[in-house]
Amino acid sequence: MFACTGYAAQSADAPLAPFSFERRDPGPEDVRIEILYCGICHSDIHTARSEWGPARYPVVPGHEIVGRVSAVGSAVSGFKVGDLAGVGCMVDSCRSCASCRAGLEQYCETGFTGTYNGADKKTPGVQTFGGYAKAIVVDQGFVLRVPENLELAAVAPLLCAGITTFSPLRHWKVGPGQTVGIVGLGGLGHMGLKLAHAMGAEVTLFTTSPGKTDDARRLGADHVVLSKEPDAMAAQAGRFDFILDCVAAKHDIEAYLRLLKRDGTLVQVGAPPEPLSLNVFSLILARRTFAGSLIGGIAETQEMLDFCAEHGIVCDIELIQPDQINHAYERVIANDVKYRFVIDMNALAA
Amino acid sequence: MFACTGYAAQSADAPLAPFSFERRDPGPEDVRIEILYCGICHSDIHTARSEWGPARYPVVPGHEIVGRVSAVGSAVSGFKVGDLAGVGCMVDSCRSCASCRAGLEQYCETGFTGTYNGADKKTPGVQTFGGYAKAIVVDQGFVLRVPENLELAAVAPLLCAGITTFSPLRHWKVGPGQTVGIVGLGGLGHMGLKLAHAMGAEVTLFTTSPGKTDDARRLGADHVVLSKEPDAMAAQAGRFDFILDCVAAKHDIEAYLRLLKRDGTLVQVGAPPEPLSLNVFSLILARRTFAGSLIGGIAETQEMLDFCAEHGIVCDIELIQPDQINHAYERVIANDVKYRFVIDMNALAA
Repeated sequence: MFACTGYAAQSADAPLAPFSFERRDPGPEDVRIEILYCGICHSDIHTARSEWGPARYPVVPGHEIVGRVSAVGSAVSGFKVGDLAGVGCMVDSCRSCASCRAGLEQYCETGFTGTYNGADKKTPGVQTFGGYAKAIVVDQGFVLRVPENLELAAVAPLLCAGITTFSPLRHWKVGPGQTVGIVGLGGLGHMGLKLAHAMGAEVTLFTTSPGKTDDARRLGADHVVLSKEPDAMAAQAGRFDFILDCVAAKHDIEAYLRLLKRDGTLVQVGAPPEPLSLNVFSLILARRTFAGSLIGGIAETQEMLDFCAEHGIVCDIELIQPDQINHAYERVIANDVKYRFVIDMNALAA
Repeated sequence: MFACTGYAAQSADAPLAPFSFERRDPGPEDVRIEILYCGICHSDIHTARSEWGPARYPVVPGHEIVGRVSAVGSAVSGFKVGDLAGVGCMVDSCRSCASCRAGLEQYCETGFTGTYNGADKKTPGVQTFGGYAKAIVVDQGFVLRVPENLELAAVAPLLCAGITTFSPLRHWKVGPGQTVGIVGLGGLGHMGLKLAHAMGAEVTLFTTSPGKTDDARRLGADHVVLSKEPDAMAAQAGRFDFILDCVAAKHDIEAYLRLLKRDGTLVQVGAPPEPLSLNVFSLILARRTFAGSLIGGIAETQEMLDFCAEHGIVCDIELIQPDQINHAYERVIANDVKYRFVIDMNALAA
C-alpha cells in the first residue's frame, strides 16, 4: 500500500475536502498512474451527494483521468513508465460473461467495477477511489493509451463524455449522407457535435438556448434549431436518420421521436432521473426505435481516443484548481460551463 | 357504380346496422371481390366509435377480407375471375415516396388509404368502405393472393393480426436459437405465438390469465409466465432476444424491457391510447431497444400468406353471422374471444 492524497465527500451533504487514503501497490497486471488531469462529470455530483442511491463514504469521485505511468507490474505488456495513460468509468469487470467477452465491459452481466464508489475486486472489502487524487492503480485491461498529440487536460473528459457519445454514433453506424440530430449542448452534446461532424454526417443541434447558436456552429453543427419554437420543430419532422439525446432532465421525448424518418433511431445518453412519458404511436407509425447507450467498452474507448487523435478532437474545457471543485459543482448544476471542468491535479499537494 | 349491401355505424354511439351504398365499377387496374369472410379487429370498434378521432359516417368497418374475384379490369395481370383474393388494412398509397418505393406502403409518407374511413384516391370526395359488405373493389396493387389450402374463414384475420405480428418478427430477424417473448394472448398474441414458433424461436408467452396456459402451449408457446407473479417475472430477467408486446392497454413496459438481454429489442404492436411511463435507465443499462411496428407492406403481406400456407397456419376464430356483430363487439371489448371473430358474409342479403 502507498499513501495517496485526493479530494473526497465524507457525506451526502458535505463539500469535497482534502483527503488522505491508501492505494494498493501495483500487482503483476497493474499500472500505476500519476494523475495530471481529471474531468468533472455530472455523475460525480450525483454519486457524491447520494442522488443515485446511497454512496459509500468517503467518495473520491473522478472517472475522466489522464496521467503518466509511474510503475507497471511484471505482467504488464502495453504500458511502460513515462507513457501517457487514461482511465475512464470502469476499472474492472467479470471478464467472462457474454458482454465482457464481446468487449462490451460496460454491460458486464454482473456489473462492472466503477472507478469510484465500486467494490474493488482486487482488494476485497475495499471500495474504489477515483481520479480526484494524485495517483491511481488500475489493471492494464482497463487502462487506455493516450495520444501524445492532443492537449492533455482536454483529453480527460473524452474518457466519459467522449466515449458516451462516440459509442452510439459508431454502433448505429452514423456516417456521410446521414442527417443526425444532437439534443442539448452540454458536456455530452458538445462532444456529440464534434464526433458526428467528424464522422461525416449532416448535424443539427437542438437547444433551448438562443445564445448557444454560434458556439454550436463552431463545434460542428450545420444547423441549429431552437426546440422551444414549435414552427422550427415542425419543419424538422421526419428529417433525421439518427438523434442522440444528451438531455439529463425530464423532457418531451416525443417531440424528438417525431423528427425521425421511418426506421430512424433516437438514442438516449443523458439519464433523466424521472420516467419519460411516451405515446407508442410515435414509434409504431414509422417503425421508429428508441434506445439507450452507456459509455463504451475498453476497446471502443481506445478506438475513440485514436479517432480523436486522427481528427484533432478534444473537449472544450475550463481548467480549475482542486480547491475550486465545490464551486465548479454548483456551476455544473447551473449548466454554466463550456463544456467540461477539468481539475489540474498537478496542483494537489502530494 | 353498383349497389352493395353491408353493415355500418351511422354515428359514434349507434350500433352497426344493415346499410346500402354504392361502389365504383372496376377500372382498368381494379379487382372486384365478392367477400366471403371478414374478420373483426379491435380497430374496427375504435373507428366505428370515433375513439381514434372523429370518423366519417357512415363507417363500414372491416379490413380482414377474403373472397373470390368476380371481375377484373383490363390491365389486371395477377388475378382472374374465380381466384381467391384478400384485402388488408390498405387499399392505396402514394406509390412514389421512399417508403412506398421500398414496398413499405404502411409507412407511406403522405399516409396510406385505409380500407375503411379513408379518402378514396380513385373517387375524389368519396370515403372508403370496408369489408363488412358483400363486395369490394380494390386496385390490384393492394390485393393479395390467398392460398387454396387453408381454411378460408380463418385466413381472413391474417390480413391484419397475422401481418402485424409477422412483419416485426421478420424485420428483426427472429429465428432458431433465439428466445422470444410474446406479451398478451389475444388476436395479435395468438398469431405472434404461432408465427414465432414456426420461425424456429423458443417462445414464452406472458399473460395475466392463469386460464390461458394450456391454450398458449397448444398455440406454440414453449413456456408460459404469469406476469402478475413478481418471482416468475424476476426469473426471466435478461433472457430475451426479442419481445413482441401485443397489449393495447396501458401497462408496465419496464417490466418487459428488463427481461431483454443486452442489445435486445421490444417491439410494441398493441397500441395503448395513453402514454406509457418509461425510465430510460431500462434502455441505457443494456443498450436495449424499444420500437414500434405497424401492419406490414403489401409484398410482405403476400410473403406472410405464403409462409402460413407452407406451415399450415391460420387464426383461431369464432365464426358469426352479420346480425351478431354488435354482440361480438362487446365480447371483443371484454377480451372474450378465442381469438378472432370472423363474419360469414355469405349470409348477408345481396
